Amino acid sequence: MSVDSSPEPFGSFPEPLGSFPESLGSFPELVEGQTTSTFNQRLAPEFFDRVQARVVERLTATGLTAILTDDPEDVAYLTGFFHHPCERPVAVWLQADGRCVLLLPELEREHAELQQARAEFAVFGEYPGVRPPFGALAGAVGSLPPATPVGFGSQISHARLTAAQEAMGPADWRPTTLITKARFRKFDEEIALHQEAARITDLMITGGVELITEAVAAGGELPSEAEIAGHISKIGTGTMYAEHQGVVVVEMLAGGLVYAAANSAYPHGLPSGYRLRPGDTFMLSLGCAVGGRYVEGERTFVLGEPSAEQRAYHSIIEQAQRIGGEAIRSGAECREINRTCLDVIREAGFGEFLRHRQGHGIGLGMHEPPWLEDGDPTVLQPGMIVSNEPGIYIRDHAGYRISDSMLVTAGGSRSLTAYPRDLASCTIPV
Amino acid sequence: MSVDSSPEPFGSFPEPLGSFPESLGSFPELVEGQTTSTFNQRLAPEFFDRVQARVVERLTATGLTAILTDDPEDVAYLTGFFHHPCERPVAVWLQADGRCVLLLPELEREHAELQQARAEFAVFGEYPGVRPPFGALAGAVGSLPPATPVGFGSQISHARLTAAQEAMGPADWRPTTLITKARFRKFDEEIALHQEAARITDLMITGGVELITEAVAAGGELPSEAEIAGHISKIGTGTMYAEHQGVVVVEMLAGGLVYAAANSAYPHGLPSGYRLRPGDTFMLSLGCAVGGRYVEGERTFVLGEPSAEQRAYHSIIEQAQRIGGEAIRSGAECREINRTCLDVIREAGFGEFLRHRQGHGIGLGMHEPPWLEDGDPTVLQPGMIVSNEPGIYIRDHAGYRISDSMLVTAGGSRSLTAYPRDLASCTIPV
Repeated sequence: MSVDSSPEPFGSFPEPLGSFPESLGSFPELVEGQTTSTFNQRLAPEFFDRVQARVVERLTATGLTAILTDDPEDVAYLTGFFHHPCERPVAVWLQADGRCVLLLPELEREHAELQQARAEFAVFGEYPGVRPPFGALAGAVGSLPPATPVGFGSQISHARLTAAQEAMGPADWRPTTLITKARFRKFDEEIALHQEAARITDLMITGGVELITEAVAAGGELPSEAEIAGHISKIGTGTMYAEHQGVVVVEMLAGGLVYAAANSAYPHGLPSGYRLRPGDTFMLSLGCAVGGRYVEGERTFVLGEPSAEQRAYHSIIEQAQRIGGEAIRSGAECREINRTCLDVIREAGFGEFLRHRQGHGIGLGMHEPPWLEDGDPTVLQPGMIVSNEPGIYIRDHAGYRISDSMLVTAGGSRSLTAYPRDLASCTIPV
Repeated sequence: MSVDSSPEPFGSFPEPLGSFPESLGSFPELVEGQTTSTFNQRLAPEFFDRVQARVVERLTATGLTAILTDDPEDVAYLTGFFHHPCERPVAVWLQADGRCVLLLPELEREHAELQQARAEFAVFGEYPGVRPPFGALAGAVGSLPPATPVGFGSQISHARLTAAQEAMGPADWRPTTLITKARFRKFDEEIALHQEAARITDLMITGGVELITEAVAAGGELPSEAEIAGHISKIGTGTMYAEHQGVVVVEMLAGGLVYAAANSAYPHGLPSGYRLRPGDTFMLSLGCAVGGRYVEGERTFVLGEPSAEQRAYHSIIEQAQRIGGEAIRSGAECREINRTCLDVIREAGFGEFLRHRQGHGIGLGMHEPPWLEDGDPTVLQPGMIVSNEPGIYIRDHAGYRISDSMLVTAGGSRSLTAYPRDLASCTIPV
């Protein structure tokens, strides 16, 4: 279950703002603009061999003989199999000797075959089943001798962990975040997916601005938040279906939040029927996933000549985002970067308007560690990707936030998203 | 993260098929048909007092002094607070003395206030935080003396449980499904929400049929699966926004799967750009949530005069669903009901086309226990709601499934959804 917008922090877009089914409905129109590009969202089998080898290396270094994870993002990372999680367990068992087994229900078998999941399959019938689902995994890999050191991803539920332990034996089960951490530094193939997602996110922002600009020129009613959001979502999914092969359909394929004026001051804003009005501050808080790899791009706009108040708020957020972005570099600690960024806002006297941290890791997860927050001492390394999205929220007026997905490089970092951030570029004349 | 359709079993609609943001875009049009109805999706504070009292009674009977749950559905059940889960924990701590504390991030405070969450608040700053989030809960309720018997909902992750234990003390922490089971028998106010969701689901099916019928009459191109799905989703959300107050926006507010011909034979079908053709079998697999309470309603249609093959498949599924529905009654075991239902299909020689169980519980969860499956011995009681949705799937031809949400009554059960099931009613002439 889920709900009512999703302040993730605000910096993100809630999963409910997915692109189904409406945007699917628009593919036929958009296919007319089809290019000859053959960008493939699906990674080659050899990629998954390297991913598994990376995790096996860490397993060995930790003294574990195997690891179990049911995190859907881990499963996609290790095998290329994307699925929608439900009560039927789907899990990967990866051994230090390189053997990789995918536990899945009969209902997912064909799906996993179609996606060429890079693993042996261990299939169970139905849930809850007369024979428990993890019995199929035990059947495939054998019962674990006592004291065998086995890792499990610590995001697994207590109930599922217990079921796995009962089926597989009383080994020495140890919680670990080693797969989560293996995911921190992206492979080159993953960076290419993120870069393409960033290109599409920029197209979506541009498309939103064009829609509004044209409506202003036409002189009639301006579009509503929800109309803009719908239009933008179609641009994102339409571009993918027109230009990509093997589109990986994740929950938030392409879309985001569009909110204006006082609505944007609320963490729980959802695109509403509110129509833009001259003088409004509004945010396009967008993103998409290519090959399951997410990117965010968010800009704050003013419709018409900005007031002194709008200039002041926009300026401070632009400055905090720029300085915060410069602090994102290999060797820096997440908590220090966050402090540097948010201090710009605090020192300008706007601390009361802060509502969230600077940012978060992004990858197969829309939000994933490390966190650009006071409590995270992680040191950034090349290949990590984090969002840089300080924001301020002024009740009854508006919210201001600028976000880019930043790739940490050997020398510093670079933004994957490129739409201009300054107020002059983000002003739509009326 | 999530993905690519969601065979939940097939019997359901995947969360990605939500209604955002497109359907929000349609509210302004639909509001023209606004009625004077004042159906309120939000339950009264007194309802949550009774819910909490029910759980407290079970706590006491089990010898627990308190229970902790971070299941978003449990949180909504106990307090009326709906949220979108992310890395920032949101949890309810309910004591045997009736004290109820809601742990939440600062970012959700205003949201919880707006929803009048029925609990004391314990608020933490950000995630991961210098002080761990569960420290705020420990601060509110005090440290737990060793050996205090404390329950936790067993769906909690190992990582979060460990964090709670570290912050709150080395009590005698025991996994329990007591809240899950407390949710089995719906209160009258909940049944009213489900009934309204069923009414809207029937309207959605009717709307889909009308769209197709009108397209046939117009003589042009028939609509695509995705166009039908989009149209239906707008009917569902539009009806709610026009006729209800306090709409609870959950991930799958109103929508579903629409798939035709060979697409419908796949568990992973998603509405595509495929346009209906005379002779096709197609499924409208719909649902919505009112006040966060879900209902499913699914029918299998034939476009044009059904063939002998279509008649045979439709007939067996109609029969299995009818007999399976009659077996759903107070006092019956879930596993026996499932066997009775699926045996109809197996005994007719169609067992090879089965791909999933008869059904599942439905409530605040789109799927929740009990399960109409071989492994679930739960005995049905009045006030439970389960889906009744046997299906068969014939590769390269089509899938056939009929689903209703069934309310268990003192004497048996009744279907909340009412659209006719027979093939004559589900044939659209061409």
